[in-house]
Amino acid sequence: MKYPRTLQNLIECFQKLPGIGEKTAERLALSTLKMDQEVVDVFSKSLYDVKTKIKKCSICNNYTEDDICEICKDDSRDQDVLCVVEDPKNIMMFEKIGTFNGKYHVINGLISPLEGINPEDINIPQLLERIKKENIKEIILAVKPSVEGETTSLYISKMLQNTDVIVSKIAHGVPLGADIDYVDSLTLELALENRKKISNGD
Amino acid sequence: MKYPRTLQNLIECFQKLPGIGEKTAERLALSTLKMDQEVVDVFSKSLYDVKTKIKKCSICNNYTEDDICEICKDDSRDQDVLCVVEDPKNIMMFEKIGTFNGKYHVINGLISPLEGINPEDINIPQLLERIKKENIKEIILAVKPSVEGETTSLYISKMLQNTDVIVSKIAHGVPLGADIDYVDSLTLELALENRKKISNGD
Repeated sequence: MKYPRTLQNLIECFQKLPGIGEKTAERLALSTLKMDQEVVDVFSKSLYDVKTKIKKCSICNNYTEDDICEICKDDSRDQDVLCVVEDPKNIMMFEKIGTFNGKYHVINGLISPLEGINPEDINIPQLLERIKKENIKEIILAVKPSVEGETTSLYISKMLQNTDVIVSKIAHGVPLGADIDYVDSLTLELALENRKKISNGD
Repeated sequence: MKYPRTLQNLIECFQKLPGIGEKTAERLALSTLKMDQEVVDVFSKSLYDVKTKIKKCSICNNYTEDDICEICKDDSRDQDVLCVVEDPKNIMMFEKIGTFNGKYHVINGLISPLEGINPEDINIPQLLERIKKENIKEIILAVKPSVEGETTSLYISKMLQNTDVIVSKIAHGVPLGADIDYVDSLTLELALENRKKISNGD
């Protein structure tokens, strides 16, 4: 015996979400039966809406309901600093800190020759064009420190070599609160290499 | 800056599910953006359907799309043995084993004087009536071994004391594959008390 068809369908839908296995999908689907009707209605409608209403910003590729996202519209932000990120969700992480006041550019992926992803396949040409058009003075590369991330950073900085655009990269090192025992050796190597002088030893 | 309104709504909906925190809700909501349109449509529709189509079986309280559930409709099952469970999802657990061939009765909760839940508040009167009406010969109590579970079991067996209905309870003890070191003392006590003779020592 299985669950009734509609319930089984919902369980299968939950299972399609990342990190949700059979047991959890079952638990989540059953929990919706105990929710208020209005809550489930909003849930159902939100799912539908999100797919139809959410678009990518035509300037920076961030998620937006309009043509241009809130950040690109915001004139109070620095107009000549761009933070380059891989995914729109990274924007939200920087926004939560709240100290960066420039704009963003989402490249939607990283260069990966092995997987056949070339600079043209992600939004790098669009980024380079934007830098020229908007007269950007500095770009901060905030992609993950993997082989693909490093390749992408290297490619972008090479493309901007003969311009006067400053290219920087976010710092890599031991995260705050982490026990050095548990930090991988590559991170430790980077942390050592990028050490910061705190006293002159006078 | 926050996510666009529709996306934020969806994140909040996911957060209402049990065991889903802010970070996970964000991850799940963002993942739906990358799903195919049809998958999200089915998901949205299933959520809506489940709330409107799924009802409780009028005989046993199991989930069903009809008036009477598949199990209650099934004539090939033993008509005089009832397994009493707390929640419809427990039925599915027994069905997965596949060795029980009787019917079920969901009482939808346990007696808890502390929380003001009396026998009349859960489906116990309906159970007792059904036992009489359907001429049930045996009931198996399969509720959890908590104070409330024990109270409920005791109450039901008391109510059936002067009838010829056999009342049994599923066995409690050390689960298979568990290390005795990690089993709680109450379970171990029960396991010792309910020990089974395997040889006569001849």
